[in-house]
Amino acid sequence: MNRNAVTPMPREAVDKAKASLGLADFACANIREVVTVANKVEAATGLKYVRMEMGVPGLKPDTIGTEAEIEALRQGCAARYPMLDGHPALKEAAARFVKAFTDVDVEPRCCIPVSGSMQGAYATFMDICHAVPERDTVLFIDPGFPVQKTQLDIIGLKHVAFDIYGVRGQDLLDKVEQMLKAGNISAMLFANPNNPSWMCLQDDEIRGLAALADKYDVIIVEDLAYFGMDFRKDVSHPGVPPFQPSVGKYTDRFVMLISGSKAFSYAGQRIGVAVISSAQYDRAYPALASRYGVASFGAVFVNRILYCLSSGTAHSAQYALAAMLAAAADGKYNFLEAAHEYGRRAAAIKEIFIKNGFHLVYADDMGDPVADGFYFTVGYPGMTGAALMEELLYYGVSIISLDSTGSHQQGLRVCVSFVSESQFPLLDERLKMFRDDHPAA
Amino acid sequence: MNRNAVTPMPREAVDKAKASLGLADFACANIREVVTVANKVEAATGLKYVRMEMGVPGLKPDTIGTEAEIEALRQGCAARYPMLDGHPALKEAAARFVKAFTDVDVEPRCCIPVSGSMQGAYATFMDICHAVPERDTVLFIDPGFPVQKTQLDIIGLKHVAFDIYGVRGQDLLDKVEQMLKAGNISAMLFANPNNPSWMCLQDDEIRGLAALADKYDVIIVEDLAYFGMDFRKDVSHPGVPPFQPSVGKYTDRFVMLISGSKAFSYAGQRIGVAVISSAQYDRAYPALASRYGVASFGAVFVNRILYCLSSGTAHSAQYALAAMLAAAADGKYNFLEAAHEYGRRAAAIKEIFIKNGFHLVYADDMGDPVADGFYFTVGYPGMTGAALMEELLYYGVSIISLDSTGSHQQGLRVCVSFVSESQFPLLDERLKMFRDDHPAA
Repeated sequence: MNRNAVTPMPREAVDKAKASLGLADFACANIREVVTVANKVEAATGLKYVRMEMGVPGLKPDTIGTEAEIEALRQGCAARYPMLDGHPALKEAAARFVKAFTDVDVEPRCCIPVSGSMQGAYATFMDICHAVPERDTVLFIDPGFPVQKTQLDIIGLKHVAFDIYGVRGQDLLDKVEQMLKAGNISAMLFANPNNPSWMCLQDDEIRGLAALADKYDVIIVEDLAYFGMDFRKDVSHPGVPPFQPSVGKYTDRFVMLISGSKAFSYAGQRIGVAVISSAQYDRAYPALASRYGVASFGAVFVNRILYCLSSGTAHSAQYALAAMLAAAADGKYNFLEAAHEYGRRAAAIKEIFIKNGFHLVYADDMGDPVADGFYFTVGYPGMTGAALMEELLYYGVSIISLDSTGSHQQGLRVCVSFVSESQFPLLDERLKMFRDDHPAA
Repeated sequence: MNRNAVTPMPREAVDKAKASLGLADFACANIREVVTVANKVEAATGLKYVRMEMGVPGLKPDTIGTEAEIEALRQGCAARYPMLDGHPALKEAAARFVKAFTDVDVEPRCCIPVSGSMQGAYATFMDICHAVPERDTVLFIDPGFPVQKTQLDIIGLKHVAFDIYGVRGQDLLDKVEQMLKAGNISAMLFANPNNPSWMCLQDDEIRGLAALADKYDVIIVEDLAYFGMDFRKDVSHPGVPPFQPSVGKYTDRFVMLISGSKAFSYAGQRIGVAVISSAQYDRAYPALASRYGVASFGAVFVNRILYCLSSGTAHSAQYALAAMLAAAADGKYNFLEAAHEYGRRAAAIKEIFIKNGFHLVYADDMGDPVADGFYFTVGYPGMTGAALMEELLYYGVSIISLDSTGSHQQGLRVCVSFVSESQFPLLDERLKMFRDDHPAA
């Protein structure tokens, strides 16, 4: 590394911002801490990063959502506590949405609004932790969203994981079964499409995971944060195939997390829906009964855990998501149309990285190239992901390392959502400068 | 009890709703479960309860809040993740509000928006739990808001408490010191005004508690859910005494919880602010460093705990509360004027209870009658609080028992916010019927 190069961001400003975090080792910085460094450097210098660290949707939401929310505020929803199990219209719309786009039947009563999928995952983990205290570990199919593991750390659950890189199809199922056999795993989590590799599990894999969940009595937490965003196939038409793949087709042991943040560009309002199968919702656990006085997984989720976490979810945002989900299920609003923009940007940004000496890390998806979507992954010869993340901050490019995602590969997770076309030349110029300062061996 | 009386609500409808909760013993029903019973009976019968179980603000919020929120939505805040440490205007307004109405100096950076004080308390408990793992117990000055104890159960912290009934002034301080001496207590919590007794700690008591916090190195969680609502004195004028009492005047070891729900009638949007002293915010704990890679109490609160709980708080609601707090601090909006309505209702509803054979439980506040405010407490001769709660549900009156509040007295917590003047005759009639069926011994 050429530490003496004049970099686009002054070294002292970057160093000062890094030091302000109080981290023992910058390699363990989480997404929000990288955001903080970029914000501080920008504030101190007036210079702008090309920001690809955070999964921030860069699109405007459809007015269907905001107008419904504004109307609800005018009608006075701000004064009234939201029902803990959610605004009835959102519960109804969520069930119809799930049927329309995954072809899975769920009941409105089992569709629970949450303060973002972040809260949905937290509440799910906590419910599982207390329902099945004799098993203390969650299995992650990595790479993944790092904060879900921090959630487990906070709750006091353990986790095991493996990197899906090169482990697909029957190998994937064999690997999962081997881990479930240990008997300590209460739940497994995967995202589809996967953040950040953008790999997509295929139907055979999903069916196999569902069968394993039944065989070993494990709950699948299916993170659908990027619902429908495998743009190689168009799942945007309600009630007609192809559908967003879901384990809900093959097992009752699931909690689906549907986020308003990405597909609906509604991250600011912290709104999502946790969709629980009826059987899982009603399943009675003696450990829940003795801890909470209520045995049902769903009742504890709603009346105990969500109550304690935030007493429900901001009322007006529930009206917004209800309106968007209902319009999508009715075929009046193509919720994926706007998100295609991410695919177009991904294609262009990949090209800029590759021409500057980077390579794709997760490139192959069961014989096909991974789709162009919200994220992709890149590496640079001779550098670890952590070193690359840290070094690029001096070059005005803000991205997180794959380390934190549970990947065993060396590289970065690139999020394309916040990079506009007008920034492409600047990105190219900065990566070129980086490459000049760091000639590959 | 006359179990055969014809009651305003059909017995079978009430019994069915109670059974639907799956509780082993109805005496342990929480507020939301009582709400559920009342909702179900109303839905099944078309009859209406006089509802006094839940602290639901019954007033319309000022348009300052909703208009600011609507404008923020129009400007696109729904698309952008909120900053984890909060919208800068809200942080700024919260610090000014605290100075204006408690005369305590706090920094905007230490004023953290939360998804309601519920999330604020949860995050605070979790931070303290992980900062001071060698002390596993929180002290509550009871009676109090029962869900805060459920939060501790979920987190895995213990709690001890005592009933403030008859324990005031120097007795209170002696009692607290005796409990702190055990060395297992990391934090103590009280609400001022107190929910549900509506007792208010006096300045000498608050100063004494602050001194004990310093002496035993304990963090005070000051729940200001009912900010300024001791209507015996008018604290609504910014910058001039009298002020809302606060331990912040006497110690740095505090987290104040300021709620948007009650004083600002904004419960629907789940918005509040956790205000931490600068010293507590910056205090470094080795246990936090080893668990989270960050030592500072405040940094863990924001970048680890709030991140994991919900990735921040609904964006538009932050604009609403910012506008209301700023207008209040500037003297342009008397945020307590509307809330005086609760005091007027309390006076009238107390009278209805008393004329039907009930008596006040917490009646005396250091020689003065307790103020008329959001809550008061009543008992009935010869009946426990739990039996009274359960029996009144048949009489169309929905209230929670004092048991769940940590009180050792027998009686009910009456919330006046949702009872309109037009319901007073109905309440009178139903309580009379109850009294006729349950002649006091």
